[in-house]
Amino acid sequence: LSLTTFPRPGDLEFVPLAIEPTDNGVIGRFTLEPKLARPDGALFGGTAIAASTTLMETATNAPALWITTQFVSSAVIGEELTLEANVVARGKRINQVQVNGRVGAKLVFTSIGSSALGREGGLDGQFLRMPDVGTPADAAPFQPGPRGMVDPESSFNRVSQFRQTALADAEKRTDGSMALWARTREGGLTPATISYLADMAPIAVARGAGKLGGGTSLDNSMRFGPDPSGGEWVLLEMHGHLALGGYGHASVHVWSEDGTLLAYGGQTANMRHVWDAG
Amino acid sequence: LSLTTFPRPGDLEFVPLAIEPTDNGVIGRFTLEPKLARPDGALFGGTAIAASTTLMETATNAPALWITTQFVSSAVIGEELTLEANVVARGKRINQVQVNGRVGAKLVFTSIGSSALGREGGLDGQFLRMPDVGTPADAAPFQPGPRGMVDPESSFNRVSQFRQTALADAEKRTDGSMALWARTREGGLTPATISYLADMAPIAVARGAGKLGGGTSLDNSMRFGPDPSGGEWVLLEMHGHLALGGYGHASVHVWSEDGTLLAYGGQTANMRHVWDAG
Repeated sequence: LSLTTFPRPGDLEFVPLAIEPTDNGVIGRFTLEPKLARPDGALFGGTAIAASTTLMETATNAPALWITTQFVSSAVIGEELTLEANVVARGKRINQVQVNGRVGAKLVFTSIGSSALGREGGLDGQFLRMPDVGTPADAAPFQPGPRGMVDPESSFNRVSQFRQTALADAEKRTDGSMALWARTREGGLTPATISYLADMAPIAVARGAGKLGGGTSLDNSMRFGPDPSGGEWVLLEMHGHLALGGYGHASVHVWSEDGTLLAYGGQTANMRHVWDAG
Repeated sequence: LSLTTFPRPGDLEFVPLAIEPTDNGVIGRFTLEPKLARPDGALFGGTAIAASTTLMETATNAPALWITTQFVSSAVIGEELTLEANVVARGKRINQVQVNGRVGAKLVFTSIGSSALGREGGLDGQFLRMPDVGTPADAAPFQPGPRGMVDPESSFNRVSQFRQTALADAEKRTDGSMALWARTREGGLTPATISYLADMAPIAVARGAGKLGGGTSLDNSMRFGPDPSGGEWVLLEMHGHLALGGYGHASVHVWSEDGTLLAYGGQTANMRHVWDAG
């Protein structure tokens, strides 16, 4: 049984969702504010997956296990988003949930995923090790965002902070491997907030091609490990895999400071914002 | 522009979908036959993602870019599945699509994903290299499936064939890394059929814990590279990442015989079928 209560208090500090129950789940509403937007004022994909994760957990009273969010259209600062979470299969331990996020009648994103209570004696273990990197204190400041739009006071830079650290050559799985320490100033570390922080993997696709910049996510997929417990920073170990006709695929491992694999994700992006280094 | 026509002929040889247009996409129907089922006679997850991929491409006349399929309930051999693909965003190049698979009124699975036409001059490149493994001819026979249910004439073993090959220690990214050569006797290699073949990653979660067996998928996510062109076998490079309370997360890279990264996927499973080696 899970001892956590849902929604997690930190999640509501991060995305101030007003939640009410429905026959088959919950509805949550929030107004898009700058900290939840991209530098251009549109909904940040990480916000959509974070709010969806919170609602999946709230609708089922169980921790999120995996989630994929599909970005269908856009929303801008000041608009109210209404998220409807429907439990399409409610099991003794495993639930399948779908979330539609809308502005008025317009579909903005859809999330699908599972929440699940652990089985006593069920298979347990972490099968890989964290890369050996320097501490956040020794890492270099890093501000994601399109070129010329990296105002530290706008957008996700209001509540999150990134620092780049070096991966040893042996730990670069691809030509597009890189690592960022990341933290949020609000909400602490939860599956929702680490999904928000991890929405950066397209940067690694650009790096794979020897470029700077990133892209616009078409989706964001996360698979969660143990609940984050303590620690302030997470390491985003990102790998760009391939690009094709202007689209790119990347993966991200999210590590706690003490080496626990908190989540593992994949992402596909439209690589619109790419430029030459130097 | 894509020169491929959709549905791809090989896909219809593999899953014999009867497809008709709707106002906002297509509907496809097929009857579940043994080759598309698990050894226990239930719908094989790989079939659901394969048929969804075919319908996404058909509804938009563009190649699949990524897809995630959520498994909600089950279907058994002899039942008719009706898949409804709706295009929720139709762009000049990028489409967002949702597919619901049902038996009668019962929701069996939901898929979300994008198809996209490449952009001339868009970012292109493969940023990692295929592991150095032996040929399919030198690999050892491997039959997936729960213990005691590996009849080569039933289920996916009717149309697909797997052979295990060794990964060098330096290429084992996790304790649960393993590699299988795989091919299908029908349909050839397409994004749909490689999604079918790649629905094996939970085996790598069991291996990570030093066990044999696998699990029941809760979802299957694939991100596609270039169209498979030629070659008969694909290499499934699988990595078990972690297990928690009986659930496990894994990833898979799908390689062509000539070293092209054809697809990259992630999967979460309920690790129900696990036993000690030896």
